[in-house]
Parts: sequence; structure tokens; C-alpha cells
Amino acid sequence: MTTLTGVDVFDVRFPTSLSLDGSDAMNKDADYSAAYVVLRTDDDLRGYGFTFTIGRGNDVVTEMSRQRALPLIGRDVDEIVGDLGRVYRELASDSQLRWLGPEKGVEHLALAAVMNAVWDMAARRAGKPLWRLLADMTPEELVDVADLRYLSDALTREEALQILTDMAPTRAARIAELEHRGGYPCYTTSAGWLGYTDDKLRRLLQESVDEGYRHLKLKVGADLEDDIRRCGIAREVIGWDAHLMIDANQVWDVPQAIEWVNRLAEFKPLWIEEPTSPDDVLGHAAVRRAVAPIGVATGEHGMNRVLFKQMFQAEAIDYCQLDSARLASINEILAVYLMARKFDVPVCPHAGGVGLCELVQHLSIFDFVAVSGSLEGRVTEYVDHLHEHFTDPCIVVDGNYVLPSLPGYSAEMHAESIAEFSFPAGGYWATTRSGERPLESAGAGAQA
Amino acid sequence: MTTLTGVDVFDVRFPTSLSLDGSDAMNKDADYSAAYVVLRTDDDLRGYGFTFTIGRGNDVVTEMSRQRALPLIGRDVDEIVGDLGRVYRELASDSQLRWLGPEKGVEHLALAAVMNAVWDMAARRAGKPLWRLLADMTPEELVDVADLRYLSDALTREEALQILTDMAPTRAARIAELEHRGGYPCYTTSAGWLGYTDDKLRRLLQESVDEGYRHLKLKVGADLEDDIRRCGIAREVIGWDAHLMIDANQVWDVPQAIEWVNRLAEFKPLWIEEPTSPDDVLGHAAVRRAVAPIGVATGEHGMNRVLFKQMFQAEAIDYCQLDSARLASINEILAVYLMARKFDVPVCPHAGGVGLCELVQHLSIFDFVAVSGSLEGRVTEYVDHLHEHFTDPCIVVDGNYVLPSLPGYSAEMHAESIAEFSFPAGGYWATTRSGERPLESAGAGAQA
Repeated sequence: MTTLTGVDVFDVRFPTSLSLDGSDAMNKDADYSAAYVVLRTDDDLRGYGFTFTIGRGNDVVTEMSRQRALPLIGRDVDEIVGDLGRVYRELASDSQLRWLGPEKGVEHLALAAVMNAVWDMAARRAGKPLWRLLADMTPEELVDVADLRYLSDALTREEALQILTDMAPTRAARIAELEHRGGYPCYTTSAGWLGYTDDKLRRLLQESVDEGYRHLKLKVGADLEDDIRRCGIAREVIGWDAHLMIDANQVWDVPQAIEWVNRLAEFKPLWIEEPTSPDDVLGHAAVRRAVAPIGVATGEHGMNRVLFKQMFQAEAIDYCQLDSARLASINEILAVYLMARKFDVPVCPHAGGVGLCELVQHLSIFDFVAVSGSLEGRVTEYVDHLHEHFTDPCIVVDGNYVLPSLPGYSAEMHAESIAEFSFPAGGYWATTRSGERPLESAGAGAQA
Repeated sequence: MTTLTGVDVFDVRFPTSLSLDGSDAMNKDADYSAAYVVLRTDDDLRGYGFTFTIGRGNDVVTEMSRQRALPLIGRDVDEIVGDLGRVYRELASDSQLRWLGPEKGVEHLALAAVMNAVWDMAARRAGKPLWRLLADMTPEELVDVADLRYLSDALTREEALQILTDMAPTRAARIAELEHRGGYPCYTTSAGWLGYTDDKLRRLLQESVDEGYRHLKLKVGADLEDDIRRCGIAREVIGWDAHLMIDANQVWDVPQAIEWVNRLAEFKPLWIEEPTSPDDVLGHAAVRRAVAPIGVATGEHGMNRVLFKQMFQAEAIDYCQLDSARLASINEILAVYLMARKFDVPVCPHAGGVGLCELVQHLSIFDFVAVSGSLEGRVTEYVDHLHEHFTDPCIVVDGNYVLPSLPGYSAEMHAESIAEFSFPAGGYWATTRSGERPLESAGAGAQA
């Protein structure tokens, strides 16, 4: 028997705000960070997982992750990985922690971090990359792990099972198709951060086109004249055959979103991303009706499956951008994929940050293989940042995520990276002058 | 000049789970807790505020509250209380902390705790109870402090101003009316907790009727036959002229809620509270259509004003039960009251827990005086727990909250209570055997 003997959690922060990487109209000084969870066992097996934040408060998420993981200690690993629905429901139903959301914010981010580590451990235990672990599960097994609570008015268990059953016989063919075409298609946001100069924007867009990207995204929403100029530069560089997406990062009220997006319509954006509050289902539906044929995309701040259910029911979005570290891992993500399939909305996961690209490649591959069966209208985000900190970084070639082959969820960071960027005692932060960087914070790594 | 010199935050937990006070179908073992904030100045002035949780994780909320309050240190108190909209927007717009919600969960609870303390300090500085501080503000001043972001498709600034301006000339008459009638009407939940026996239920209901209550609430949702029996007992005791409310604390999916509530329709409940996920706007609307004339009530887990906006837009609720410690204090609560007035939905605030009754009495009085101008369909929750820990506890006589008269937001706890119930080092917890009580936790009071 292998026993889960302990949990280490780390507050890891990267000083990305120094270069304005990640700058947008809402988030001007993001320090990409991870509340990073390591599940230890009494043999060589480990489970690695994290959630993503942008700096201050990551210590609080780290401590909440520790508390979320405590009930796992002392358990038989095979019992845990043998019933990943049960362990999820047990952790999610801690009523005292649930009160702090429920199912949203820090307590939910922490559940994501812990369950991401549990799924990584399960995939390592099986000796498979996570996408293949999922692709090897039966429809019944997948439905059993999916969190369908509060969804039955939109998707019943029987409907979920039917979707998966219909796709099961042709899974192998779609895996072969992905391998043959070189992976799962992605797009890049690396060029379009708001803090970049016009020259840097132009140069990075050209580089992205040269690398084979056909979908490119710009940040907008701070200043309309700037946006018009920057979208014009983008179309000059990428032409009119490639797709241009724009992303406002929640800065607008609904009427303002409609007016602003229609002012940018001449640049024929494929979608407007996060036009307003991520909680505003009815607001997104109103924007969508008013800016068509420009699509509406949101989801990176989509707090849980109940929000996505309503986005689908209200026909509020054209693209579902679920987040692998904000939803509570595979259990909740699977429910969103199944609803998206029923409501015929393509899922184009949010990525970037730190480690999100490593996670979402598994999700997108699994979606194509076992749920949607389609690549049409689907393209997964890719940002070329911070991959060097991971032991099994994602590989993108010609605008495609190459299928991961190593066991796990690709979530493990190098020990050196953790030592250097742990906050506030890691090598980088300890030698940075206080006052320049995130506000003083009481948190650090914790161990249980 | 008076300077804000420091912030003390305390993780205060009361062992309410021992008596099953607060037990319901979702929350079986609540230890009512507060993340309690004290703003210190260089003279005698203090500001006290808190948010409410039910046990584990309160340490994390406490630490987040400390971080939320840090930007206040060193400021001129009169500058803070002179522009309570600006200080709110400054704290709320910390983009790194905002990412952890946004505007929901722990980071938002912490903003509520801090801004509650700021409002308490402002009322003390003015020498007025909070409700009167608000009632003495002009319509323009009130609109300036209200957080109307993301709301303009439902309520414009001009509409908000018009509502307040229309009611301003008659404010004094309504204050006199409340004083004359003995206060603001309330109802009690003290009788109906799910963990109580039938005999205790019967006895407590009778006591409540004898004390003058005309609205009484039962917890339901764990077992239908139990609910039928308990509702029958309730009607036997309170008769058919008094109002019976039922509260499911989010246990149902939408179809199940509709079926279950209709099975209890014979007991003619005034409302069904929290029939499903608090995030499910469209689900509440569906339940409301299907169980009328039984009303639908929700809001104690209503995460922010954007959720309430949609509840109003979708005609999803008959009663708005906003929470004084989950919404980000007066700034956000005021926006919800103004929308409720426009959409003609009565606000019946959630209370109970620890200290929530102390806060909501101020809100309800202000609502009547300056916003709604009506008591019709309005009744504020009251639970007879834990008031002894407050220096200015609410006073309920004949089913009415008596108007508070001391300066502040009634949020200050006795120093002895904090010393006894601080977790884990306070007198009570230090002498309780470990293992019996909340899971081990790293948090405690913190100081900045």
C-alpha cells in the first residue's frame, strides 16, 4: 500500500510586472504567481498541482490550499485515485470552507490547486499523461467523476452519458488525427499586451505570423483612439485572412462595451473577450446581441460550473474560455465541457499566466478526443512565458500544442525555480529591495 | 490631524456547533466566527468592523483583511471619512487582490470587513449611529459613495439620484414614524434550526409567538417527510395568520426545488429561501415561476451587486436578502438597495451569525428612511445568538429592532470576548482538547 504522507505548499511569484508582460486594461502590474501543491507519498510517487494568481494574496491562497489538502493525509493513494469523484466531493463539501465562497474565490482556487495535484498523481500512478488517462476512462467513469450538482436543469446525467458514449467508439481515430496534424491548434497573446509600444507590437505580431499563427489577440479597453491605432497596426501586419481577437479584461459597463466594440468593428475581430464583469450572464447576452457578428468570449474568471450553465442557457457567449486553475480541476471542468457540447459552444480555454498552458493542452486534447469531436471554431490560448520553470513544458510547433507524452498533468516545477521564486524568502525576493515589489505579506511556504 | 496608525485583526470563533445552533441542510456544524478588524488612530478614535464566517478558513479571511487594510495606515482620518467613495474604490481596485475573486469570496469578504470598520469609524467620528450618518447625507453624497460600476444597464447614476432626491424631503417624518412604532420589524429564525428536536421546535416556536413575532422561519431540505411533519407542527403552533418561511440553504437542483417546494405548498409558506445555488439567477427565476404564489428569497450568499442586478433583471426573486458582511459594506449595499427600489423588490436582509443583526438594523432603518420609504413586505431577520459579545448589542422589543442611538455601526466586541474566543490561542480554544474542534489551523491574530 502507498500512503499519502504529507502536503507541501509553496507561494511562488514571478516578477513579470517588471516587463509589463501580462499588462491589460484591468491588470496593470501582474506578478504571475502560483499556489503550488506537492502531495508526498511513502514511495517515489508525487502529485503536483497549482492555481494561478497575479501576486499579492497568493500567500492566502497557499494557506487555504494547505487546509484544503489536509484531509488527504494518511489515505491510501490507490483508494484516492480509484474514486476521484468521491475525493472531490469530500473536499468540496467541507461546509465551513464552502461558506467562504461558496464555490468561488480563494476557497475554490485552493480546491483547484489541490485537485489538480490529485489528478496529476492519478496520471503518474497510471503512467500516462493526463489527457490519455481521461481518454482511457469509460463514459460511466467520466460521468461519475464529473460534478453535475446544480446542473440538472441544463444537463442530466443521462445526457452526459449519451454524449460520451456516442463519441467513445471513435476516440482512437481522433487521437491518430491529432498526432498526424501535429497537435491541437493554438493562438498567441504574446504580442498584444497593453503596455507594449507600437514598435514592439508590430515586431511581435510579425514574429507570430512568421511562426505560423493564424489567430492573434490584442488587449483593448484603456483608450479608444489607442485601440483604433493598434488594431490598424495589427491588420497591416497580419492581413485580413488571419483572425484578430480583442480582449477588454472587464473594464466596461454593458452599454459602454456595446458602443466601444462597435467602434472597432471595422477591424473585423473574431471575438471580444471579457467585455464586462465576468459574473454578468445577462450583460454578456446583451452585448452579444448588440455586436454580432463579432463573437463574445469569456471564462477566465468564470467562477464555477453554475455560471457557465447560465452563460449557455442565456446564449450569452460564442466561445467558452474556461480556466484550468479557477474551476475545481477535472471534476468541474468535465461538467463544463459536457454542457458546452450540448449547447454547441466551442471551448477555447484560457491559458498563459504561469503553467496554464501546460494544463490546458491536456484539456483541449481530451475535449476533441472524447467530448466535442471537432476542431471547428476551436483554438486554445498560448502565451510564451515562464515555461522554463516546468519539468515537462508544453511544446508548440507551427501553431499547435504537441501531444504531451510524459505521465502526469505537466504541472511539476523545477525545484530550483521554487527555491528562487518562493515569496518572500526565495533567492530572488530576498535580494530585491522591499517597497518596490508586492506589499509586505505574512505568508510563505507552509507544510502539513 | 488624526492619523490612522495601525490595524489589528482577530480570528474570533464561537463554538456554536456544540449546540447545533445554526444547523441546516447544508451547514451541519457551523462555528460562528468573525474576521474582526480594529482600525487604530493616534487619538481615542477607533473603527470596528468584521465579516462573518462559520469556522475553518476564518484565519485566511483574517489575514486577507489585514492585507486589505494596509493601504489605510498613515492616512489622515478626516481625509478617509471625508471621501468614503474614494477610499472604497482605492481598496477595491487593487488588481492583484481583485484577481482572487473578482469581487467575490475571501478577497471580497475581507473588503467588507475593512470597509465596515471604516464606516464604523466615520460614524464614530461624526458622533452618530451609522443609520443616522447615512440619513444625514445628501442624495449626491450617497450616490458618490455607491459602487455603481457594471450596473448602468440596470440603474444609471441619474436614476439613483432621482430615487434619493424624491425621498429626501420626507426622511424626517419616517424617522419619527419608526420611533413611534417602536422600531423596524423583524422575524426570527431562532426556533427552526434543523438539528433541533420536535419538542424543542414546538417550544421555541411558542416562545417566539409569545414574544410577538408574526414571521417565523424553518430550515428544510434534508428529508421531505421530516419537513412535512415540522411544517405541520409549525402551523399548529403559530396558526395560519402568522407567516411561515422555509429555508433550504442551497441543497436542491432546480427541478428538485420545484418538486419539493410544491410538496410543502399546503403549509402556505411566504417564501422559499435559497432553493438552489446562490449563483443561479436563471435557476431562481425558473423556481419562482413554478412555485408561485410562494415567493423566492435569496441573498445571504449573494456575492456582489452584479449578481443582484441580474436577480432583479431576470425577475428571479420576491425578496432580496443581502448580507451586510458579504457585500463590500455600505458602498456596495447602497447600490443594491437602489436597484431593489427601482425594480420594486423588498429588501429583507440576512442576519444572525455573529454580529449581523447589529449591522443590519442600521441598513433597514436607512432603507426605510431614505430609499424604499415602505415597510410593506419587509421584515429583517433576527436570531437570538451571541449578542452578549457586543458593546452596543441590538435591542429587539415586540418583534422590532429598536433604533440604535450610540455612535458607530454597533460592530464593537467586548475585549473579553476577543480574548476568550480568539482562535486558536484564546482562553476557550486553548483549553479545548485538540481534535474535537476545527481542524488545526495556522492562523491567529495578526497585526500591521
